[in-house]
Amino acid sequence: MRNIKLTIEYDGTNYAGWQRQKNTRRTIQETIEKALVKLFRQKINLIASGRTDAGVHAVAQIANFYARSKIPAKNIPRALNSFLPSDISIKEAKDRPGDFHSRFSAKSKTYRYLVLNQDCPSALSRNYAYYVPYKLDINKMRRASRSFLGRRDFSAFCASGSSAKDTVRTIKKISIKRGFNYTLSPPDRSRAGAIRYPLICIEITADGFLYNMARSIVGTLIEIARGKIEPAVIRKILSAKQKKIAGLPDRIRAGPTAPASGLYLVKVTY
Amino acid sequence: MRNIKLTIEYDGTNYAGWQRQKNTRRTIQETIEKALVKLFRQKINLIASGRTDAGVHAVAQIANFYARSKIPAKNIPRALNSFLPSDISIKEAKDRPGDFHSRFSAKSKTYRYLVLNQDCPSALSRNYAYYVPYKLDINKMRRASRSFLGRRDFSAFCASGSSAKDTVRTIKKISIKRGFNYTLSPPDRSRAGAIRYPLICIEITADGFLYNMARSIVGTLIEIARGKIEPAVIRKILSAKQKKIAGLPDRIRAGPTAPASGLYLVKVTY
Repeated sequence: MRNIKLTIEYDGTNYAGWQRQKNTRRTIQETIEKALVKLFRQKINLIASGRTDAGVHAVAQIANFYARSKIPAKNIPRALNSFLPSDISIKEAKDRPGDFHSRFSAKSKTYRYLVLNQDCPSALSRNYAYYVPYKLDINKMRRASRSFLGRRDFSAFCASGSSAKDTVRTIKKISIKRGFNYTLSPPDRSRAGAIRYPLICIEITADGFLYNMARSIVGTLIEIARGKIEPAVIRKILSAKQKKIAGLPDRIRAGPTAPASGLYLVKVTY
Repeated sequence: MRNIKLTIEYDGTNYAGWQRQKNTRRTIQETIEKALVKLFRQKINLIASGRTDAGVHAVAQIANFYARSKIPAKNIPRALNSFLPSDISIKEAKDRPGDFHSRFSAKSKTYRYLVLNQDCPSALSRNYAYYVPYKLDINKMRRASRSFLGRRDFSAFCASGSSAKDTVRTIKKISIKRGFNYTLSPPDRSRAGAIRYPLICIEITADGFLYNMARSIVGTLIEIARGKIEPAVIRKILSAKQKKIAGLPDRIRAGPTAPASGLYLVKVTY
């Protein structure tokens, strides 16, 4: 039995997230499992580093599966891609020792969130960045983000329907940068008059993420950058372990969950 | 009567191109005209700088229309966007003198074509760049591109169904660059291990383009970069004014038309 590790890119727009579900729109997991069955002619269970929600993208999701096969690892991506729709692509396949587990062996994961911060919406990035027309103070966002760092109970920053019992996670790094992107074109600093997309890129690295955690943190940071809630709220909400603290004004609460379309799983470290 | 000029971004993936048509999928033109009718409550004919084909995108298409209205130009984009689907966005509206005509007043247009030149396909850029896994010699492409420059009869590089009588156009500039794009993220040269998308960006500026002309030129340049056809073929095909020269081997012909998804109208100059 081989243990094969895949690196997968996907556009989450048209999927109900990673995990196979009953009575729902198609998911990334079942779509890839169907392609695996076609290629290896055996039932295969695909284990990912973690679920991604509906609409969330991945630049490099990691998943592994066990199979009996003689197909060389380097030929697997092309073969699998021929059975997959074009919004999922296998970028790499590698043999791993039997005890490698995409989820349990993972040391940390990095999510990237893109905010399109300009006056008008952008047709081309509508599914790939969250359009925020308000003025955002990213220095305020940066200072506030430090409150999330370290080992903390993130129960106030996960969806209420979450089944996680242990809500303690360690955030290792949050980076917040402003930049410009030339719509999928190579950067060219000299190009005069080029149309630029002013983006804010928020990257969060943690040992794990609760359901909706990345989007809830980003939503709160955006409200802080807009001046709608005070940075000090983060510490209060974290220690109260609730989105809203009873008896206190409405501004003492976590911000809304940011939309899935701006979120990308970009790296899993083992 | 006011003459209002719009700057429009669109994702062409789900449209049968710009021009209003009978018995077809929806088009960009009719979609915007419907929004204009809702906003201005009068029948409006929208004139674009030129048609774009099915699947072709625009970063800055220019169009104008005549209307009776007191809505300040600066408020028009937001009002119109509220009536438009998210894959079309109005970026700017400006009042122009009565004789301004998006098509006839245009001095030149620039199209950009993106080629994703890597081993594996990319789910996230599937509708936004043409995936070419072969090794491409861009220096050869650059040298060959010079044969297209200047005033020439491009009948061999336009679709056979084209109704254009005058097939002479002047190409002012072709630039070909290799670059890397970090999937809609701000460029960050220091980021180690980031996943990069190796792109080739071909920009063509001309006084006008025939139907399929940009994609036919790009398709030919790609075949040359792959070593499939000789650079000298361009001059032969241009002077023969036919895609294929009767009695000569098959390699003495223009390359195939490159797919629409990689093409963007990026600039119209007046």
